[in-house]
Amino acid sequence: MEPYILYYWPTIQGRGEFVRLALEEAGVPYRDVGRGPKGMPQISASLDFRSEPLAAFAPPVLRAGELLIGQTANILLFLGARHGLAPRTEKGRLWCNQLQLTIADIVAEAHDTHHPISVNSYYEEQKKEARARSRDFRAERIPKFLNYFEKVLAANPGRGNFAVGSRLTYVDLSLFQLVEGLRYAFPKTMGQLEPQWPKLAALCETVRQRPNIAAYLASKRRIPFNEEGIFRRYPELDK
Amino acid sequence: MEPYILYYWPTIQGRGEFVRLALEEAGVPYRDVGRGPKGMPQISASLDFRSEPLAAFAPPVLRAGELLIGQTANILLFLGARHGLAPRTEKGRLWCNQLQLTIADIVAEAHDTHHPISVNSYYEEQKKEARARSRDFRAERIPKFLNYFEKVLAANPGRGNFAVGSRLTYVDLSLFQLVEGLRYAFPKTMGQLEPQWPKLAALCETVRQRPNIAAYLASKRRIPFNEEGIFRRYPELDK
Repeated sequence: MEPYILYYWPTIQGRGEFVRLALEEAGVPYRDVGRGPKGMPQISASLDFRSEPLAAFAPPVLRAGELLIGQTANILLFLGARHGLAPRTEKGRLWCNQLQLTIADIVAEAHDTHHPISVNSYYEEQKKEARARSRDFRAERIPKFLNYFEKVLAANPGRGNFAVGSRLTYVDLSLFQLVEGLRYAFPKTMGQLEPQWPKLAALCETVRQRPNIAAYLASKRRIPFNEEGIFRRYPELDK
Repeated sequence: MEPYILYYWPTIQGRGEFVRLALEEAGVPYRDVGRGPKGMPQISASLDFRSEPLAAFAPPVLRAGELLIGQTANILLFLGARHGLAPRTEKGRLWCNQLQLTIADIVAEAHDTHHPISVNSYYEEQKKEARARSRDFRAERIPKFLNYFEKVLAANPGRGNFAVGSRLTYVDLSLFQLVEGLRYAFPKTMGQLEPQWPKLAALCETVRQRPNIAAYLASKRRIPFNEEGIFRRYPELDK
């Protein structure tokens, strides 16, 4: 099989990381073109109707043979079906997609904690508003979303403490990434709140110990969290 | 067939409207339970793991026989496949889902123009920040997204000026709702900018004239836009 091609920014985990984790767990070959030579023009081309009839609005974008697929949850829907990272039933697939879209919602909100006014201005230009939005995010939104995901884990009758059924799905990988991101960005808040969500914490360890994920996390392919990505550690937003 | 049951807030179009439009166009029976007697407890139950093993995080939620489906784009993925509102090919389905998720992104941003700091506070408490966010939304985000959708229409080789292929899909219905919402919330801005997007405007008229949609829009089932929904007309945010 032709290797997949991932088009994503080379210096951040960002939304591309949810795709990278799925590709790594599946153990399928892929080229992360942004990190290679002439990466940026190739990313731009994936967003340009002059070169692509189905150009995407924004990265991440995945090329899979004839297909060019954009939107993180859509890429995972595709990879999940193709590589056994989602159930085979319609019910299970829809549930995975539903959970992934709920993860996407909190990820967008996490981004807006440092950019509540405009993605076109620097954080430093919207610091005051960022403090107000982060206060709400920490007090209301993190608990609301993570309580929900804890209940998803508790309500799953399958074995193994996965989100869906008795086997790992891309939703588990994404929950790991979400919790890791929140821990990075809001260490104080998460330190205080996390004991409420033991099943989520256990799931993170399960994911971290998957052989392919462990190898990935130890490799240079895993870009460290930083202050260019979605999850940013600004101490003034965590107190 | 058992009628579908839609769980959504009874007084707003909101995200539920994207689902209502698909159900109306498909001409399938559904109960909008929020608008009937004892609607609110039924909506709450769809979000409660004590009554639903696959409880949703938030409305809209659709019950389809044994299935309970949450997240707007996920509901449309299901309805599109089942009622001929999406192509049959994997490529076409993924492209529809990708476009719908991009619509979801701008819908979330439209919401945040009036709630940039917290969904738990009133608009009046975040009016200053709302003005700043709306300025960016009008100057940068509306043009970026609508330019993109105009190009999607231009790049589609199919006949009929639809977004995907030569037949109407749920994406066309959602683009109609998006543009109508932006026209309602930002009449001045849209009046100035819309001439740039003739294909989008033409698509809106095509959708508006579909017999089932025309009947729906003329009925009491169509809740008018108002200042409780996602698209709100606050003149101070449109200048």
